[in-house]
Amino acid sequence: MGACQPNNSQLYIGIDGGGSKCRATIYTAEHQKLGTGVAGRANPLHGLEQTFLSITESTQLAIADAGLAPSTSQQLIAGIGLAGVNVSHYYQHIVNWQHPFKAMYLTTDLHTACIGAHNGEDGAVIITGTGSCGYAHVGDNTICLGGHGFALGDKGSGAWLGLKAVEHVLLALDGFACATSLTERLLSHFNALDAMGIVEQLAGQSSSAYAKLARSVLACAQEGDAVAISIVKEGAEYICKLARKLFAVNPSRFSMIGGLVEPLYPWLDEDVAKRISPALTPPEFGAFLFARKQFNTKA
Amino acid sequence: MGACQPNNSQLYIGIDGGGSKCRATIYTAEHQKLGTGVAGRANPLHGLEQTFLSITESTQLAIADAGLAPSTSQQLIAGIGLAGVNVSHYYQHIVNWQHPFKAMYLTTDLHTACIGAHNGEDGAVIITGTGSCGYAHVGDNTICLGGHGFALGDKGSGAWLGLKAVEHVLLALDGFACATSLTERLLSHFNALDAMGIVEQLAGQSSSAYAKLARSVLACAQEGDAVAISIVKEGAEYICKLARKLFAVNPSRFSMIGGLVEPLYPWLDEDVAKRISPALTPPEFGAFLFARKQFNTKA
Repeated sequence: MGACQPNNSQLYIGIDGGGSKCRATIYTAEHQKLGTGVAGRANPLHGLEQTFLSITESTQLAIADAGLAPSTSQQLIAGIGLAGVNVSHYYQHIVNWQHPFKAMYLTTDLHTACIGAHNGEDGAVIITGTGSCGYAHVGDNTICLGGHGFALGDKGSGAWLGLKAVEHVLLALDGFACATSLTERLLSHFNALDAMGIVEQLAGQSSSAYAKLARSVLACAQEGDAVAISIVKEGAEYICKLARKLFAVNPSRFSMIGGLVEPLYPWLDEDVAKRISPALTPPEFGAFLFARKQFNTKA
Repeated sequence: MGACQPNNSQLYIGIDGGGSKCRATIYTAEHQKLGTGVAGRANPLHGLEQTFLSITESTQLAIADAGLAPSTSQQLIAGIGLAGVNVSHYYQHIVNWQHPFKAMYLTTDLHTACIGAHNGEDGAVIITGTGSCGYAHVGDNTICLGGHGFALGDKGSGAWLGLKAVEHVLLALDGFACATSLTERLLSHFNALDAMGIVEQLAGQSSSAYAKLARSVLACAQEGDAVAISIVKEGAEYICKLARKLFAVNPSRFSMIGGLVEPLYPWLDEDVAKRISPALTPPEFGAFLFARKQFNTKA
């Protein structure tokens, strides 16, 4: 495949990089999916080298999956949505990278997720998985809320639910709060006998270790545990407030994305729950659409 | 100095290791201070190798300060109070260390701080600096509360005050909470224009970066800022509850130790504030007393 082929045979790669993994998919200009690769975390706030490595690895895996030659990367137009590049410092580092692509267009993972969810049209998204954040793009209006990361913010996310539960359980084990079924559930999760048994296993752990506790918190809440209910309600209330801030710019569509959407759904207020539409395409497809638009605008 | 000298010429080294530094002081059996050395952090939860290095370095600095030969360490009886060794896993790792001393007696930094504060007698202590925790030793009773570390617990500590302030300010900058003078104060501390400017500088930072904000929170509270007052009151309330749990075992003395004691003092309830007695000797002296007692019990 030469560089002087007509534009419609140009291949694209859409890349979605976040705190737990990096997914890359190769598309033709006509939206045909040729191959996909998944590599490790790609959040520049937690390491630039790891980010570059994960982008390169997922790209090579996608190229192999598509049955193309490794050198194909030099002919790809890449669209990359990355967590953390709303911090200008990291945006510049990534843009200055000696990337392996023909051209690279960079934006936030929120932006590409929003483009993907609404198949290229304007709209709003809330992502709630390990972390939480909200984004809306309507005409010239762009809003980006939350996404401040663990343990500063990300209310209503899996890591936040886990952290609040551990905080409460440790206070309860010291006798400063009521022990409920949540206390037993977390002690059992960690196979621990006391507070220090939990602390030992969480020392130095990242947000994903806390997000693993979210299912236990949600299960306890569903069974009527008062502490778990209060934590889940506070999280859901924040997600609803986030949604209403996004609704203020009148997005025609609104989607929620991430592993916590389904278990949080019963806890959302009706005005928010009823506006949720399914995400039409995945974030890496959004990254592809973003790159194709940018490339064609420049061409 | 030979190994067969009479016991009263035996030299001791008292070592206090924590999350920010490790201090070692050499004493004669008659309490005479011969030399002191300070090295980096020594908290096994954040790295065993660093802990061993800081203990060795502070020891060599103390030996040099005392004008003794480097090989003197092999003749010293060491008492070591370390953060994190209430976790049995870390206690075993340190005990199994091929240490450079004639003998080594290990306990928690809380225990040695308590022995030091009450000059070897029973009593209770609360430490509130970067972290917070409480400890009491009365007869056969020992209580150890809190000290679960950042960001799991340590309410009322410097890092906790800082974290709560940042959480609030980030919510306020997104429009989910009221902005007060605390918001301006933190933006100015970070020389930041917005939420991401703060997030960028705190990403991956340890508790000490948060503890640096405590003075700003306390200053805002003193100036009447409602948000700062609510945070400081919640912290002080926890410290008071911690104290009352310790009072339940009837300690004859109670001391508070750490950089946050003086600024938190005006926020403590009277029943707690009036029971505070000054710490009589430093934690490394407590570590020396601990080692001397253990050594003489064994001899």
